[in-house]
Amino acid sequence: MSAPVYTAAELAQRAGLGLRGDGAVRVRGVGTLARARADELAFLANPRYRAQLADTAAAAVVMRAEDAEGFAGTALIARDPYAAFARLAALFETRAAPEPGVHPSAVVDPGARVDPRAHVGAFVSIGARSRIEAGAIVGPGCVIGEDCVVGEGSELVARVTLVKRVRLGRRVLVHPGAVLGADGFGLAMDGGRWLKVPQLGGVVVGDDCEIGANTTIDRGAIEDTVLEEDVRLDNQIQIGHNAHIGAHTAMAGCAAVAGSARIGRYCLIGGGAGVLGHLELCDRVTVTAMSLVTHSIREPGEYSSGTPLMDNRSWRRNAARFKQLDALARRLRRGADSDPT
Amino acid sequence: MSAPVYTAAELAQRAGLGLRGDGAVRVRGVGTLARARADELAFLANPRYRAQLADTAAAAVVMRAEDAEGFAGTALIARDPYAAFARLAALFETRAAPEPGVHPSAVVDPGARVDPRAHVGAFVSIGARSRIEAGAIVGPGCVIGEDCVVGEGSELVARVTLVKRVRLGRRVLVHPGAVLGADGFGLAMDGGRWLKVPQLGGVVVGDDCEIGANTTIDRGAIEDTVLEEDVRLDNQIQIGHNAHIGAHTAMAGCAAVAGSARIGRYCLIGGGAGVLGHLELCDRVTVTAMSLVTHSIREPGEYSSGTPLMDNRSWRRNAARFKQLDALARRLRRGADSDPT
Amino acid sequence: MSAPVYTAAELAQRAGLGLRGDGAVRVRGVGTLARARADELAFLANPRYRAQLADTAAAAVVMRAEDAEGFAGTALIARDPYAAFARLAALFETRAAPEPGVHPSAVVDPGARVDPRAHVGAFVSIGARSRIEAGAIVGPGCVIGEDCVVGEGSELVARVTLVKRVRLGRRVLVHPGAVLGADGFGLAMDGGRWLKVPQLGGVVVGDDCEIGANTTIDRGAIEDTVLEEDVRLDNQIQIGHNAHIGAHTAMAGCAAVAGSARIGRYCLIGGGAGVLGHLELCDRVTVTAMSLVTHSIREPGEYSSGTPLMDNRSWRRNAARFKQLDALARRLRRGADSDPT
Repeated sequence: MSAPVYTAAELAQRAGLGLRGDGAVRVRGVGTLARARADELAFLANPRYRAQLADTAAAAVVMRAEDAEGFAGTALIARDPYAAFARLAALFETRAAPEPGVHPSAVVDPGARVDPRAHVGAFVSIGARSRIEAGAIVGPGCVIGEDCVVGEGSELVARVTLVKRVRLGRRVLVHPGAVLGADGFGLAMDGGRWLKVPQLGGVVVGDDCEIGANTTIDRGAIEDTVLEEDVRLDNQIQIGHNAHIGAHTAMAGCAAVAGSARIGRYCLIGGGAGVLGHLELCDRVTVTAMSLVTHSIREPGEYSSGTPLMDNRSWRRNAARFKQLDALARRLRRGADSDPT
Repeated sequence: MSAPVYTAAELAQRAGLGLRGDGAVRVRGVGTLARARADELAFLANPRYRAQLADTAAAAVVMRAEDAEGFAGTALIARDPYAAFARLAALFETRAAPEPGVHPSAVVDPGARVDPRAHVGAFVSIGARSRIEAGAIVGPGCVIGEDCVVGEGSELVARVTLVKRVRLGRRVLVHPGAVLGADGFGLAMDGGRWLKVPQLGGVVVGDDCEIGANTTIDRGAIEDTVLEEDVRLDNQIQIGHNAHIGAHTAMAGCAAVAGSARIGRYCLIGGGAGVLGHLELCDRVTVTAMSLVTHSIREPGEYSSGTPLMDNRSWRRNAARFKQLDALARRLRRGADSDPT
Repeated sequence: MSAPVYTAAELAQRAGLGLRGDGAVRVRGVGTLARARADELAFLANPRYRAQLADTAAAAVVMRAEDAEGFAGTALIARDPYAAFARLAALFETRAAPEPGVHPSAVVDPGARVDPRAHVGAFVSIGARSRIEAGAIVGPGCVIGEDCVVGEGSELVARVTLVKRVRLGRRVLVHPGAVLGADGFGLAMDGGRWLKVPQLGGVVVGDDCEIGANTTIDRGAIEDTVLEEDVRLDNQIQIGHNAHIGAHTAMAGCAAVAGSARIGRYCLIGGGAGVLGHLELCDRVTVTAMSLVTHSIREPGEYSSGTPLMDNRSWRRNAARFKQLDALARRLRRGADSDPT
């Protein structure tokens, strides 16, 4: 594959960025500030890496105007260098779109419909009444059950399972190992044994969502589990049945949302964080990593739980006191109440 | 598929429930209290949703006797509305059982046995000395290694892996992406490098267990990892080698049990909770979400760890004090000791 | 399969161990102290199980010299009984290596290279420019994308996905459901919508690494995500893009490392623990289970966060006080400041 080449000036123009320094310098790829080669584009967004600017060998660097003061090289000036870099980096991503058509090894139910402009890879099985729309890509080893839709331009990278009644919108990207539409975890205790509650709903995923590797999204018990548009889920996330995730919300790896929880738009859920069932989070709530949300949140803002990391010896001493915390507070209150000052 | 139809009176009779109101009303499916249509059955179990009763359009509602006071519609009276609803909802779940037989694409070792009344789907591979019993369903993309058993009436929905020496009882349901029987995590440090400890045991799963999507259960190092009957595991759970889970225990998503831990019967392990290795939990222990069990538990009851969720600013202030907790307690004790009152 | 037989004396000699008692006793397998049969080898490493020594039926037991005092049976004396047992147990692990060759159902891109001494199983697909080296085993249902390498003697057990640009060294073992090389979670907010940041790097895995079932390792954004040699990852672990894990580090189940974190050599990361992005951990850091690392660690040692497990009623009382901790500390300080003593 012959890599594309752009001048810094061309890149600035394409992304609508300001240019300082030599616009004729040629860019053939991207690199990090610390290790970019002389024909690569780098970026500076996180102040943590600012010191690397002095020594970078990059052909050009995307950065904020204030960071460009005194920079000797070629700078592309952006208000949001990370977003600008993302757009430019895409120019250097060479992905061969797979050919339309169904691989001869695939097993497609006669009642399923595959658009002739879709690609269905090796060892894929597609169940009754499912539909693969134009431009969709179903990679090798995927299993699509009954009554599913893979919308226009969506991609299941490989080994994705849509169990049943899963409808993906357009341009949805699902990474390997993800399982959408498995039975929700519905159980009733009945005479000393568990009774399974039928899971009759489905999963609806809006346009432009991204779903990470080995993430699971259960189908609803009665109504559907819903992701609105542009929801971004990292790897190994668990979404319980009948959860509802608002548009533009992003969740980091290993987060979990229990059944019937309702999360607003533009929320950010940190890695390993949990949201208990039946709660509601309003729009623009941030939950920090490994925090547990135990009550509904009505105010936008950042929320946390947990304790700070310490060396284990100190931690043991302090953690032991946590068990006495109520007693300590009572003693302190008694002391204060009897305090003559 | 033509949906089944029942009158409210028929439903009451089938589930042994009391009936108030019009028993002739026809039910064609199930819905939630808030959104059921006029031919759907709903239920009220969680008091959180009681206010929705006034406006429901449902044909009939399963509820407790005390909730039915003043309800104008048709009520099916149950002591446990959730369990009763579960039984009735199953009437409306139309699942076509797959045809018995082995899909032509499947690769079955000549030393494996597949009962003629079992179904083996597309792209399944079955290893030497494994046995698929009558009425079992092995869905598309499953991999069954050597020396495994899929018991009578059990179902591997799709893309399940039984690695080696995994014996499933009867009516076990395993969801996509689950991996049973992978090597336990056994390592010994030996001269500055890790030495792998052979994992020579298997996995035994009792009758009526359910295992969630992308859940992993490792095989034992020497003896077997064991799930007794009617254990219910949600998605993304990790069960370490030689763990033993008692009958009727249920674990919510992302919980983890380390090696050689022994969990009793009728335990409830919350989402994201962890149990360290070699511990024992007696019967009827509940562990709340994201708690870490660091010592054995001898008394039934509910156990927790963690701190409450707060806005991040307040949390930071309090969390910083956690690091001083032992010092604060010592100071308080000194103050109390010198307290003249 | 006829099981191998060794005398205790032969085992002692093979592993370089001391022998006490009857060296002629025959060993045909391994067992636990509590349940070994009279022809099985057991071991005692964890003092928790010392009491079982008196009643063991084992043919011989690997143990430390001090534990052998007064033991009536045959003892194999080792400084590290667990490592010694691991080496001996491997003698009884009978694994038939699969035949070299490519299963007729496999789909191999014409531009991929499979060494004739490698094994490629059923329903495997291998993409352009990928290479499977001598002695490697690619089990059933694996998907290998473009530009990947499976090094000499490595094994993908079954249903493993190497998405793109994943290079495994020699003798790497990857368990089912693992996904290596999926897109890192790179997003930039851009005009109210998420913009995907291209993930142009790969994943490099050193020699002798082991990667657990359903573990995910994302490929780098620009440079590679790296595991140095002899890294051992348990199941359901998440490694973010551009993380770097030092040699001989081991991580227990459900641990997670966020993007661009750098973990040293010989670290031990407990189950469910998390490491935030862009942090550095020096060599020989231990993080206890379910702790969250929120800042870089420069000193070897053991680190923890969290609170102790309590019965839920006590926990609620103490946890409520956690929200008042800063206020309590301020009150205590005021009291101390005004303290006349």
